[in-house]
Amino acid sequence: MDGTFIKMIKDVELQEPIFIEALPGIGHVGKLVAEHMIHELDAEKFAELYSTSFPPQVFVDENGIIEPMKNEFYCLKSQGESERDYIILVGNTQGLSPEGQYEICGTIMDFVAGYGVNEMFTLGGLGTGQPVEKPKVFGAATTSELAEKLKEHEVTLRSADGGIIGASGLLLGLGMTKGITGACLMGETPGYFIDADASKAVLKVLLKLLEMDLDIAKLEERAEETRKMISKAQQMEKEVTERMNIVPGEEDLRYIG
Amino acid sequence: MDGTFIKMIKDVELQEPIFIEALPGIGHVGKLVAEHMIHELDAEKFAELYSTSFPPQVFVDENGIIEPMKNEFYCLKSQGESERDYIILVGNTQGLSPEGQYEICGTIMDFVAGYGVNEMFTLGGLGTGQPVEKPKVFGAATTSELAEKLKEHEVTLRSADGGIIGASGLLLGLGMTKGITGACLMGETPGYFIDADASKAVLKVLLKLLEMDLDIAKLEERAEETRKMISKAQQMEKEVTERMNIVPGEEDLRYIG
Amino acid sequence: MDGTFIKMIKDVELQEPIFIEALPGIGHVGKLVAEHMIHELDAEKFAELYSTSFPPQVFVDENGIIEPMKNEFYCLKSQGESERDYIILVGNTQGLSPEGQYEICGTIMDFVAGYGVNEMFTLGGLGTGQPVEKPKVFGAATTSELAEKLKEHEVTLRSADGGIIGASGLLLGLGMTKGITGACLMGETPGYFIDADASKAVLKVLLKLLEMDLDIAKLEERAEETRKMISKAQQMEKEVTERMNIVPGEEDLRYIG
Amino acid sequence: MDGTFIKMIKDVELQEPIFIEALPGIGHVGKLVAEHMIHELDAEKFAELYSTSFPPQVFVDENGIIEPMKNEFYCLKSQGESERDYIILVGNTQGLSPEGQYEICGTIMDFVAGYGVNEMFTLGGLGTGQPVEKPKVFGAATTSELAEKLKEHEVTLRSADGGIIGASGLLLGLGMTKGITGACLMGETPGYFIDADASKAVLKVLLKLLEMDLDIAKLEERAEETRKMISKAQQMEKEVTERMNIVPGEEDLRYIG
Repeated sequence: MDGTFIKMIKDVELQEPIFIEALPGIGHVGKLVAEHMIHELDAEKFAELYSTSFPPQVFVDENGIIEPMKNEFYCLKSQGESERDYIILVGNTQGLSPEGQYEICGTIMDFVAGYGVNEMFTLGGLGTGQPVEKPKVFGAATTSELAEKLKEHEVTLRSADGGIIGASGLLLGLGMTKGITGACLMGETPGYFIDADASKAVLKVLLKLLEMDLDIAKLEERAEETRKMISKAQQMEKEVTERMNIVPGEEDLRYIG
Repeated sequence: MDGTFIKMIKDVELQEPIFIEALPGIGHVGKLVAEHMIHELDAEKFAELYSTSFPPQVFVDENGIIEPMKNEFYCLKSQGESERDYIILVGNTQGLSPEGQYEICGTIMDFVAGYGVNEMFTLGGLGTGQPVEKPKVFGAATTSELAEKLKEHEVTLRSADGGIIGASGLLLGLGMTKGITGACLMGETPGYFIDADASKAVLKVLLKLLEMDLDIAKLEERAEETRKMISKAQQMEKEVTERMNIVPGEEDLRYIG
Repeated sequence: MDGTFIKMIKDVELQEPIFIEALPGIGHVGKLVAEHMIHELDAEKFAELYSTSFPPQVFVDENGIIEPMKNEFYCLKSQGESERDYIILVGNTQGLSPEGQYEICGTIMDFVAGYGVNEMFTLGGLGTGQPVEKPKVFGAATTSELAEKLKEHEVTLRSADGGIIGASGLLLGLGMTKGITGACLMGETPGYFIDADASKAVLKVLLKLLEMDLDIAKLEERAEETRKMISKAQQMEKEVTERMNIVPGEEDLRYIG
Repeated sequence: MDGTFIKMIKDVELQEPIFIEALPGIGHVGKLVAEHMIHELDAEKFAELYSTSFPPQVFVDENGIIEPMKNEFYCLKSQGESERDYIILVGNTQGLSPEGQYEICGTIMDFVAGYGVNEMFTLGGLGTGQPVEKPKVFGAATTSELAEKLKEHEVTLRSADGGIIGASGLLLGLGMTKGITGACLMGETPGYFIDADASKAVLKVLLKLLEMDLDIAKLEERAEETRKMISKAQQMEKEVTERMNIVPGEEDLRYIG
């Protein structure tokens, strides 16, 4: 295994697909949106991405089964009146180093561009660190036309306020060099819990932008399940934190073997 | 010297070997288990691994002799009723950077797969940060069959609780892409001393899983020796810590030469 | 996208150009100087530099439009009595890793050397952490002749006091290996706000060194605009800080997806 | 500029040279020893090493002249009764990343091995963090014969106490793979000032090991000069520290340009 590669699961043909990115980030906002769409609309996984720039670890699922670090591409056939298909990217991690992020995001953009993607939305949360009563959706776009369209859908445009960090930002930047227009939608969230409210707010805007219909009621249930799973995880968080403090090699310096 | 390479010490032929990994980690749990097996069963070193992704340093042994950073492969002929042989991996360090960990673990998996390995166990500790009365053994597996088998041997399956960091996790993840099944066994340990009790607990489970017999009494003696050596080391730990705080280059900024 | 590359915008012919670097740094000192020169003298952008060693993110401008990380080369025709042209380098970021800095700065030096550059000035701030009444200009040079010239223009020579970190230093060091002489000019600044006074002090020295005329009155206005923009940004800084604390992958360890 | 390379200054022929390393480290201990030998014995610089793994910066000397990051190889003809020559390595920095340290130290070992080096000494300090009345010299060796010889010269052998970090350790480890024997000598030092006493202690042992004569009186003077230069530097240390806290890119997030 060397670098970053994509493992095809199924060959698919897609019509002018729109690309939607929701890799893990603050408050699980983007992830909940994407998982809801994937499950409610029966999106199909057609490819996986692996990279040596992912964190060197594995996850354990709720049944004690080991799950490697990966990103997953789902496709979704055209919905409602639109004739365009969709590619949705989810996963359990992002790249660690800057160079790794560029390599991974560059591979992703090359891959989706190969399917004719010319428009994209990246989803995430924008953490306030404070309770949020009615979450706003913040946004930014690669063109002023799209920025205008966001405003029409009650998105609060961000304004020279610090940039968009990680895959949600970098994918848009790399897309620009390929002539792909796009926008980032960020749900306002305290940021320290699984935030279904922020996700709902983002999903509503996204559905309007895509002119798509979807029942959002079950998103709350899904968030609840995630919360339960995480509460279990938090019991063991202390342990994890401690294991993380043992940097390999550094540990060796303390205990000689 | 460039990248990661394996230096062969002896050519060996192994029959369907099972791979056991015990690189250094929390509480020396895995390391004590592997060293006990190696010494009690006269396992033989047949290869060493060196890497430019190891920490840039050397160790000093109890006689003032310098020892480079390395991982070591031992082989062990079939034991008891089983006809299968074993490859045991120990060492004094792990890779430092994520990319380095992937390179090293990838090289390890390619190497052991070349001997026909299709099953593996990775050993470690799971730190609680608190006194542990009777250490449990925690585990996770790459398949539900193996997870079930762990449960039968009184292993507590981990459950969506934060992943397995470092070589113990990554080797299992990389093994999955080669069709190698495996499990991680982690002895519950406070984590801040050499924990022979946690090691014994892990060794007992491992012996049952491998249907192997082995006197575990001497493991306590071995732990005692290690503790003495480390107690000496701790006297000088303060010094080491200080040297570690001198990042090369940063130091230069403070004292101009 | 792989490594570091330069995208040409316009072919230009330049006469013995002097290279001026003002990438972002403490107190915006160099940046304000360069932006003032670019706007007042109608310098023209002729090339952009992109790199996978830039931070993996994008910026959002005051209209909610996304702007990728990049460095920008402007050219300026000879001014006043001098017959020499100028290349001015500005941008919204520097490389992150040491290796990345070397790659980017090496690419920059190769590029400008191709235009016949044999003299360069790098501009920045020197933070005191304390209020500064009348900002001094500190400097260092690659030759004693140039150091002497700096002294004649009331530059305080730095003296074995800790080096010049980042592009402003490294470009001079790499230039030396190509026989390019140069100096660094650093305006004394508290360092925690946009410091037009420090910029003015640097600009005055630079204009004298280049024997160039330029109205510096508008620099204060430009600084004021930047301050307003940043004050908005600071309202959201808290949020940004929090997002930054979410290291990808680490986050995954806390919330399992 | 790419990777690590050596720039030859003069071709030299050396007879079975012994290699002495004294790159910057704690308390300037090794550096003072090497500089004293170089100046008192008129050693001649014959090569320089540059690397993209050095910190991305330059130093400024006491006259405001910029000095790039580099390591320097000096040669010294046979002294006293020995017929063997010497290669002495000094410099103003070490590599930053682990991979960089391996690349740089690997290049160094290849280079000196090309001159027939089969024995080496690496010099440094061992910081106690506490006042030291009469500094001991600590040591470790690659062979038990050499360890024995160190003991005969009143070197206190280190013992499983945490390893030797950085070039002083790694060079010995890499040398072992080439059949080069060697030892590390570390002068006991509080570590927070230029420690001529520790240097003298190391120098005395080294001279006995090399059967070489050298007046050590001037070492104290040299230390005094270095101290003065550094005291000036400390006045500006605060500033340097602040500049160092501005990580490129991170800064951009706070002040939008």
